[in-house]
Amino acid sequence: MNKFRFLTSGESHGMCLDAIIEGLPSNIGIDTEYINAELARRQEGYGRGGRMSIESDTVQIKSGVRFGKTTGAPLCLEIENKDWENWRIPMSVDPVDMGDENVSEIVNSKKITRVRPGHADLAGVLKYNQKDVRNILERSSARETAARVAVGAVAKSVLKEFSIEGKSTVLQIGNAFDEESMKQEIDNAKEHGDTLGGRFEVVFKNLPVGLGSFVNWDRRLDGRLAQAVMSIPAVKAVEIGAGCLCAALSGAKTHDEIFYDSDNSKYYRKTNNAGGIEGGMTNGEDVVLKVTMKAIPTLKQPLQSVDIQTKEAYTAHFERSDTCAIEACAVVAESMCAIILADAFLEKFGGDSLEEIKVNYYNYIKNSG
Amino acid sequence: MNKFRFLTSGESHGMCLDAIIEGLPSNIGIDTEYINAELARRQEGYGRGGRMSIESDTVQIKSGVRFGKTTGAPLCLEIENKDWENWRIPMSVDPVDMGDENVSEIVNSKKITRVRPGHADLAGVLKYNQKDVRNILERSSARETAARVAVGAVAKSVLKEFSIEGKSTVLQIGNAFDEESMKQEIDNAKEHGDTLGGRFEVVFKNLPVGLGSFVNWDRRLDGRLAQAVMSIPAVKAVEIGAGCLCAALSGAKTHDEIFYDSDNSKYYRKTNNAGGIEGGMTNGEDVVLKVTMKAIPTLKQPLQSVDIQTKEAYTAHFERSDTCAIEACAVVAESMCAIILADAFLEKFGGDSLEEIKVNYYNYIKNSG
Amino acid sequence: MNKFRFLTSGESHGMCLDAIIEGLPSNIGIDTEYINAELARRQEGYGRGGRMSIESDTVQIKSGVRFGKTTGAPLCLEIENKDWENWRIPMSVDPVDMGDENVSEIVNSKKITRVRPGHADLAGVLKYNQKDVRNILERSSARETAARVAVGAVAKSVLKEFSIEGKSTVLQIGNAFDEESMKQEIDNAKEHGDTLGGRFEVVFKNLPVGLGSFVNWDRRLDGRLAQAVMSIPAVKAVEIGAGCLCAALSGAKTHDEIFYDSDNSKYYRKTNNAGGIEGGMTNGEDVVLKVTMKAIPTLKQPLQSVDIQTKEAYTAHFERSDTCAIEACAVVAESMCAIILADAFLEKFGGDSLEEIKVNYYNYIKNSG
Amino acid sequence: MNKFRFLTSGESHGMCLDAIIEGLPSNIGIDTEYINAELARRQEGYGRGGRMSIESDTVQIKSGVRFGKTTGAPLCLEIENKDWENWRIPMSVDPVDMGDENVSEIVNSKKITRVRPGHADLAGVLKYNQKDVRNILERSSARETAARVAVGAVAKSVLKEFSIEGKSTVLQIGNAFDEESMKQEIDNAKEHGDTLGGRFEVVFKNLPVGLGSFVNWDRRLDGRLAQAVMSIPAVKAVEIGAGCLCAALSGAKTHDEIFYDSDNSKYYRKTNNAGGIEGGMTNGEDVVLKVTMKAIPTLKQPLQSVDIQTKEAYTAHFERSDTCAIEACAVVAESMCAIILADAFLEKFGGDSLEEIKVNYYNYIKNSG
Repeated sequence: MNKFRFLTSGESHGMCLDAIIEGLPSNIGIDTEYINAELARRQEGYGRGGRMSIESDTVQIKSGVRFGKTTGAPLCLEIENKDWENWRIPMSVDPVDMGDENVSEIVNSKKITRVRPGHADLAGVLKYNQKDVRNILERSSARETAARVAVGAVAKSVLKEFSIEGKSTVLQIGNAFDEESMKQEIDNAKEHGDTLGGRFEVVFKNLPVGLGSFVNWDRRLDGRLAQAVMSIPAVKAVEIGAGCLCAALSGAKTHDEIFYDSDNSKYYRKTNNAGGIEGGMTNGEDVVLKVTMKAIPTLKQPLQSVDIQTKEAYTAHFERSDTCAIEACAVVAESMCAIILADAFLEKFGGDSLEEIKVNYYNYIKNSG
Repeated sequence: MNKFRFLTSGESHGMCLDAIIEGLPSNIGIDTEYINAELARRQEGYGRGGRMSIESDTVQIKSGVRFGKTTGAPLCLEIENKDWENWRIPMSVDPVDMGDENVSEIVNSKKITRVRPGHADLAGVLKYNQKDVRNILERSSARETAARVAVGAVAKSVLKEFSIEGKSTVLQIGNAFDEESMKQEIDNAKEHGDTLGGRFEVVFKNLPVGLGSFVNWDRRLDGRLAQAVMSIPAVKAVEIGAGCLCAALSGAKTHDEIFYDSDNSKYYRKTNNAGGIEGGMTNGEDVVLKVTMKAIPTLKQPLQSVDIQTKEAYTAHFERSDTCAIEACAVVAESMCAIILADAFLEKFGGDSLEEIKVNYYNYIKNSG
Repeated sequence: MNKFRFLTSGESHGMCLDAIIEGLPSNIGIDTEYINAELARRQEGYGRGGRMSIESDTVQIKSGVRFGKTTGAPLCLEIENKDWENWRIPMSVDPVDMGDENVSEIVNSKKITRVRPGHADLAGVLKYNQKDVRNILERSSARETAARVAVGAVAKSVLKEFSIEGKSTVLQIGNAFDEESMKQEIDNAKEHGDTLGGRFEVVFKNLPVGLGSFVNWDRRLDGRLAQAVMSIPAVKAVEIGAGCLCAALSGAKTHDEIFYDSDNSKYYRKTNNAGGIEGGMTNGEDVVLKVTMKAIPTLKQPLQSVDIQTKEAYTAHFERSDTCAIEACAVVAESMCAIILADAFLEKFGGDSLEEIKVNYYNYIKNSG
Repeated sequence: MNKFRFLTSGESHGMCLDAIIEGLPSNIGIDTEYINAELARRQEGYGRGGRMSIESDTVQIKSGVRFGKTTGAPLCLEIENKDWENWRIPMSVDPVDMGDENVSEIVNSKKITRVRPGHADLAGVLKYNQKDVRNILERSSARETAARVAVGAVAKSVLKEFSIEGKSTVLQIGNAFDEESMKQEIDNAKEHGDTLGGRFEVVFKNLPVGLGSFVNWDRRLDGRLAQAVMSIPAVKAVEIGAGCLCAALSGAKTHDEIFYDSDNSKYYRKTNNAGGIEGGMTNGEDVVLKVTMKAIPTLKQPLQSVDIQTKEAYTAHFERSDTCAIEACAVVAESMCAIILADAFLEKFGGDSLEEIKVNYYNYIKNSG
């Protein structure tokens, strides 16, 4: 079974988000402030609307860590939803008294029967047999990714013990490819009540050779990374290394020639079209993914849709204030990659405490030169 | 646990490839000739070299099917390697007598110490601590995908019972986008001893609404498809629907408006930028993936690399005759998608016999309008 | 992947226990009071000491349920530890100021270096490289089973929708086999500072034919139940149906003859030595398990052990007040069985809402007569 | 995901049994003759009938091993069924010509509509919607355990590299507890056309401390062993260490006191009621399971049952010649335990080659004293 397993729970306007992480080794340093900093990174970025600043997510670690270090026990991470007070009645876990006029009015005011294009709404109500679209959108909301970022911060904490670090860079927003024009593109979209997606790069450095494997399809690291990143709401494309460009490149220009540095007893490359993965394994170069996110589907410009109760057409207008969430998405993608890489790392090196893993790791590095 | 589970085994020059599939319902029609036809599709395509025609793969079903129908028991599918006779000694399972000069000469002639860029070779020998690269490349070879196509044919046989069908189309090879220029591009590359990759589309039609789910990251269908396709050797990018194009599209142009056809009590769309998946679920439109394959890394043009025994640089030249295997790759991608879709389908509808699943399926279709 | 997945977290003296359950269908009725009643059942039983009454566990459902029904989203269940206030410092998640004398005194007073026989203590500190046994025993404590009972109550809520119900009966405590002598046995053990185990039966009624399967070893229901029950702390034997008795019975006396009730178009048995499972599947009779629990390993009678810091021998005396926890263990076993059965049920019948599953279920019942 | 994964396929009278094993490290010595010797052990034992000697199973390794060592690639193991020639028509994979009188006569003569008590027959035909019981019994037959023994021999080969070895001993057959009376019991049962079950012990020696874990229920080694053993056809009880006896023992007599051997820097016990597992982990003592098998359900003595086609009662008489298969069952149980232990071992120590695992293993042994 996977070393690094986790489940998340929680709704966009529910009481809180939770995550349980299981399979961690002991003695990994976990810093609440570091997790909070990661959560803050997810809330930043040009093009975000008002809600983000209200949220200012912070995590509470409820188990699995003692005096700043993991014990091997599962971690429970909780992120409160700050405006829960306003949602206690319409999002009540227990049945409410619909005979009470105040209550029924509040509840009914939050009922939704209009499905938004580009969301889980329509497929969700059909699959789960719901009359109130809120029962779908509360969970399918990108709010859930805050929990993933908290989990990802724990994964990054594991990797950091081995000097493995990841970062992301936005490459494109709409038709803009540099920072200044990206801002203009966002301002322009905002003015028109429109939204934007984009494309970003995630890079992890200092990975050892041999994470993942070619021996069976589901052990391949490229596949596992692709699943993790494609599972982020709004992501529509995942590329590794040169990615889509490979369609146009001939073999002579695609493959990264291999050299040997005899001073350091180390193989190396001068190019990295492979994005650090060959044969489904890390090859020692940086792991590089490029990820495309579609524009936020909640926008002010009218979109045609249907009311699932009346089956009548309507034109959707939304007051959602985010114009572009590409930077948030990049942080989530970093997190998902960190989770997969930490899992593959722990699987390769075994061990149950940081100390044991370090011994295994350094012996492998020494012996596999 | 997954409904549709499978494992494959076998080496490029071993005795045979095998696959065991487990979790199938009973009473699904399985036709050996259909599987063979799929295997033949994998071997075709402009740009393939000589070996393909030698192979002419055929499957032997060894268990799990009786009188043409599944019984619920696991299927074992075997594909013989036609030139096994020539490899009995160098690929012997049992130890061979290296004191016998004939034997040792044959064995040594097949030993490989030069790692090829773009392959599993280098990372593989370091990870698995091998001196002979053959112990890596025999399994990491794309030969293994023949077993996946056989498994995929079984998955397609399940889907066909519900009129779900998939096909693939090559969109790009090098810088060519139509059939005539694709052929020229291949002829040209062949002349220069170079190779080519490309980009193709896979489309599945007639899927019910609600396969996959948004409730947890690893239930999302888009993620599961992305893993399955990215796990194919040489695939470097997976896009869903408009894919990478989404980076440039504004929200108003991205999302597929929803309409209701009251005559047929059915929701529908006029566009399909989502590629049939919203919120990690099928939405009733065609599921559309675009996949990019890198050029074959075994080429005649020189590539710089290293001998792992001597650590000396060398220049790789290969006699491999394939110039472009994009059509084969597309068939493999269809197969992997069929496997994921069949798994998600069986998971959604439950049931252990075709008859039971049909009852469940039609009731859902009727009730989820 | 499994339909009904869950993870738990939390320490014996930590802030709280949490569980996340994932893969549930929508529209299942979930009643906080029912879960609390199950938690209360776990805390009862003759032979329990003082701590139990202090605890009086109650659950808070934090997500996945709206107005008393599941939505399909994951459930988070939390059980507070009532005496957390007293443990804030020695169980602190964040580092504490060991320069502060008060703090260091509190922390040191809770450090444990003596490993108790019969517990995870010794193997745990060696595996996870810990100096303080508390870092092991906090998680390995049977306290964690409260979270399992909460999860089990949700599983029972699923099963109840199909009139499937389970209960447990204590069969043996020490050498006593009826209620009166069991109490005497407990009183007697208590007087001597000793503890007791026992044996109990778990029975589930009204299961449909065909949950689980014989087609692969890990789909067998008997195996899945055995794992779930053997995973409960202190359980040392799991029997199905006649269980260990089968060693002495000849074939003619073992197997349950099959009859057909043509009035109700139903097969039935007059005996149930199989315990409701043949070929790894439910056969329509009651599912019956017998479970043996060892005596609580924390007892006042002296047990010889070692201090892991000094490596010196010591004699363990404990003030723990529980003498026998067999009734609690039986409730936990019911819960684990309910989880496995709910998972197997949801797997067999598919579907994502209660309504869809009911249609599938009744059609199967009708068609499989 | 699990390190040691496997699937089996094949029917009792099909062409062959197959198994694919995946996740093995490289450079493990695999000896065909050793696997064959294990298969032979499964066919021996007092009380077996004629068919066993006909079978004389031998394995063919089809992949994953080169020159006697694993390469890291999946292993395919095949065991031919020796009397396949006689079953080509009634067990044909492809449809047969039922218009041909010879063919239809052969096929019909092998059709079964009478379900046997104590087998998968009845539940199987209802679950998988079959009219011919053969479509169930061919796969649910204990014949499949030959494949498990072959897989187990590979697991034992991994463990043997670390001097871990297992064996089994029959403890009870019917009411006999020593070898002489066991034979008499079998002779007696045979004379009456009856069959017998029994109880045996499986012991594994030399396991390191800390395989398995208490941190989550499904990581516990006791649970994983219990599932694996309970999944063997006819097994009805699994006990660990003192097992069912624990119900009668008080705490003072149950737990294994801990001592420290300062000469060898090693903890040890003088008793082993825990059966080598505390807190779901190996504690360094022998792992001991006791397993109860029910009597073979195919017997000459009449058992009442039903014809599923006519729904008429009938009295079952069988010509099956096995009277007792307890020794075979013990070999299968050894195999299943070896598989679980090898998986837990590989998970704990990580690594991808035997050499890497040995370094990790010895460092842990040295550091965890």
